[in-house]
Amino acid sequence: MHDILIEERILAENDRLAEENREFFRQRGVVAINLISSPGAGKTSLIEKAAPYLDRDGLKFAVIEGDLATDIDSGRIGRLGVPVRQITTGKACHLDAHNISHLLPWVDEQKKLKLLVIENVGNMVCPAEYDLGERMKVTVMSVAEGDDKPLKYPAIFAASAVLVINKTDLLPHTDFSMKAARENALSINPSLKVFETSCRTGQGIEELSRLLCSLAVATGG
Amino acid sequence: MHDILIEERILAENDRLAEENREFFRQRGVVAINLISSPGAGKTSLIEKAAPYLDRDGLKFAVIEGDLATDIDSGRIGRLGVPVRQITTGKACHLDAHNISHLLPWVDEQKKLKLLVIENVGNMVCPAEYDLGERMKVTVMSVAEGDDKPLKYPAIFAASAVLVINKTDLLPHTDFSMKAARENALSINPSLKVFETSCRTGQGIEELSRLLCSLAVATGG
Repeated sequence: MHDILIEERILAENDRLAEENREFFRQRGVVAINLISSPGAGKTSLIEKAAPYLDRDGLKFAVIEGDLATDIDSGRIGRLGVPVRQITTGKACHLDAHNISHLLPWVDEQKKLKLLVIENVGNMVCPAEYDLGERMKVTVMSVAEGDDKPLKYPAIFAASAVLVINKTDLLPHTDFSMKAARENALSINPSLKVFETSCRTGQGIEELSRLLCSLAVATGG
Repeated sequence: MHDILIEERILAENDRLAEENREFFRQRGVVAINLISSPGAGKTSLIEKAAPYLDRDGLKFAVIEGDLATDIDSGRIGRLGVPVRQITTGKACHLDAHNISHLLPWVDEQKKLKLLVIENVGNMVCPAEYDLGERMKVTVMSVAEGDDKPLKYPAIFAASAVLVINKTDLLPHTDFSMKAARENALSINPSLKVFETSCRTGQGIEELSRLLCSLAVATGG
């Protein structure tokens, strides 16, 4: 019971900082996306493959990478010429609003920025509870993980606006049922927009990018 | 700073309960295994496939399943005739020693039990910090997750005695390098025993089961 009260205090403070971040992004016309998945579902690969589409028509985007350790992912994004910062959380299993607030001066330096993709630590649980000040959460699951994951990790699917079902190229080699996965996800959150993607074949990458671009352009600034 | 002190108190209390659990298992000659992975790496399938080997020669084993929600996994194990209990953690991203202590009376009822497999919530981060009173942690990663995971989630690899690299049947369809994965894992923890397994082809399942059986038999009781 005592633990729960402590957790509520921590989350309330996080929510307060997240609102400050959200107001910062709103004033600058930046759409922030909180990209969430299990370890190895393909978040960084999706950003890599989407980069050419996101960069189109003068739309400027940047990336924040979250990991416990290493700058492997920010290295991959940086090699594309995309502005990127790495947050290493040490033992923390999720990014929080405080992590992001430290990078707001850097965000401010990115002139004409429209889209900020924040790749969270690989975890299907705690990121559901920690608002970063984002416009929306985008959750990625890979077909290798099994079609029952929405039922087992419901909070993250309930909190997300978009679900990306990635690695569809592996479908012939797994027991994954796309029909069951969609039904399970929509039973948790009927308003989820679902995209099927493969970073190997390119399936769905342009459609997903178009959604992100349209959000950014609609926000204007 | 305040948060860190709170976390230390919670972990200290967990460690105390974990030692009580460990003593309970020791007195009864039960080897408890803490089975950890990302969501969908194949923990439940590994238990299903290992069950016929674990059941051999009169060795009695039981399973505790951890999930945020649903009894899907305990249903799968129960259908094999293996004694099983489900823990649903709600929002908690890991099992803790307190969860396990509640099930000790049930463990006590399992006469001649030698091996208890505790399948943790799918998460590569927090289970590293929460001792359950187990003999050892066994971490599973799937080849679909990428060979850099040991570098990005080092704590769980450092805390484990055994690493299972699962879904090797997908190797031809991914960029996963077994050599790099092994090198990365051993760079974090040189004493890791590494098994390569596939629940589709059966590769490695008997070898992994033999290790668990030998631990259980050596413990006697």
